[in-house]
Amino acid sequence: MSARQPDRTAFFVSDSTGITAETLGNALLANFPGVTFSRRTLPFIDSVPAAQAVVREIESAGASGTEPIVFSTVKGHELGATIRAARATHIDLLSGHLTELEGALGTTASEQLGQFHTVGDTERYFARMRAVEYAIEHDDGQSFRALDQADVVIVAPSRCGKTPTTMYLALQYGLLVANYPLTDDDYPTEGLPRELERYRARCFGLTTTPLRLSQVRHERRANSTYASLAQCTLELRRAEDLYRRAHIPFVNSSTKSVEEMSAVIMQSLRLRP
Amino acid sequence: MSARQPDRTAFFVSDSTGITAETLGNALLANFPGVTFSRRTLPFIDSVPAAQAVVREIESAGASGTEPIVFSTVKGHELGATIRAARATHIDLLSGHLTELEGALGTTASEQLGQFHTVGDTERYFARMRAVEYAIEHDDGQSFRALDQADVVIVAPSRCGKTPTTMYLALQYGLLVANYPLTDDDYPTEGLPRELERYRARCFGLTTTPLRLSQVRHERRANSTYASLAQCTLELRRAEDLYRRAHIPFVNSSTKSVEEMSAVIMQSLRLRP
Repeated sequence: MSARQPDRTAFFVSDSTGITAETLGNALLANFPGVTFSRRTLPFIDSVPAAQAVVREIESAGASGTEPIVFSTVKGHELGATIRAARATHIDLLSGHLTELEGALGTTASEQLGQFHTVGDTERYFARMRAVEYAIEHDDGQSFRALDQADVVIVAPSRCGKTPTTMYLALQYGLLVANYPLTDDDYPTEGLPRELERYRARCFGLTTTPLRLSQVRHERRANSTYASLAQCTLELRRAEDLYRRAHIPFVNSSTKSVEEMSAVIMQSLRLRP
Repeated sequence: MSARQPDRTAFFVSDSTGITAETLGNALLANFPGVTFSRRTLPFIDSVPAAQAVVREIESAGASGTEPIVFSTVKGHELGATIRAARATHIDLLSGHLTELEGALGTTASEQLGQFHTVGDTERYFARMRAVEYAIEHDDGQSFRALDQADVVIVAPSRCGKTPTTMYLALQYGLLVANYPLTDDDYPTEGLPRELERYRARCFGLTTTPLRLSQVRHERRANSTYASLAQCTLELRRAEDLYRRAHIPFVNSSTKSVEEMSAVIMQSLRLRP
């Protein structure tokens, strides 16, 4: 008889939004591709009764067989102790590291609850919100106004992943990102389209595989010339030639996530703090 | 002489995008509001020479006085050991927890590098990308087409924070989110605008303070009636009355971040996994 890895329930428990617990918890679970997990996020656990309800939920998940895994970012001694009473594997993502930091910094951590994802750094927060507005205004070359404010101009043929990458950079890092869609009109010239030439140092290109581009375009306009493999092959070859001639760095979006592309773009244009 | 907390350099070192290291590292640092940190993210550290360059950079930051703090999510024994040779306080965000998980799951973690933020769960990834497209198509009620696909319809007067919250829910969680901007035409009726009535169970309202709304609107249209405190006060009162009458849950965006609003919305509409 071959043994199959049992399913596990993973809980992400937080006194705030649960985003930190989910991010690190999922990063950890990704290392165990052989195990399947069902996931449950329990945010805003900031009182003992709420923590007691969490304990009941964990134990009910555990009653069906395997022990649940609990990732927690709950601060406060009493809340932590309440949750740890549940029969489960407890992975405390904060407390241990906070103790290490207290030692290194020679000061104690603030006891305030749930301050991780509050508006906090207000300046930076509003910059992120403005960046989202900017991204929408400059989506798909709708407007060249204020292009000189752009930190990044993403250049690519239609449907190569410009928009999600733009939104990620705006929302996560507050960067002002404009899009420039390459169309047939942009290729006859030797170099970059004239509107872009002065922003060349901030341009970053995207490409993908002809097959992938054709699939995505078929979803939008089935059986069009626009979506044909021949047209996609041609456009991508021209775009890559253009990037090379104009010395614009570029990545292939078919093998990278928006998070990875964003990290590469910031690295390449030296936009990282 | 009064002693001032010295500035510290915090490094986020990753063999992948650095997003996990930044997220948890910043969450930890937020507990020490009395200390000022300069931050430096070093992503894609996936070779020994790259790790050696990191060591040089950490030591050069430390040469000026206080010991740097290094948050790392680098997998692989040799890379980890190389980086830990740098004089610094090292907070390893993965290894310890991975060992705990190996024990609990009775299996060893995969040794593959940099798999945390790759396309990985392809299905879920494409759902997020499609959700961003959907959000842009349905931004500010531009289109009622396919509203019946929406997981959430965010309802609010202009400039209350609909768009960034929509984008966050789409990009982070792959939820299909539509916007409905409340205008003067929407208030005379007793309940929800007719187009929305059938989607009531998926509606969520936003409000803010009149002062904040007026400030944000002045940035857009200075000295307009639209931005006047009187108009903002009136619109917000009407909107909140509408939410209450129609039993639509709502939050105040002036005291919550997009991350928090997103968590509240998912919780309230039971959209959390």
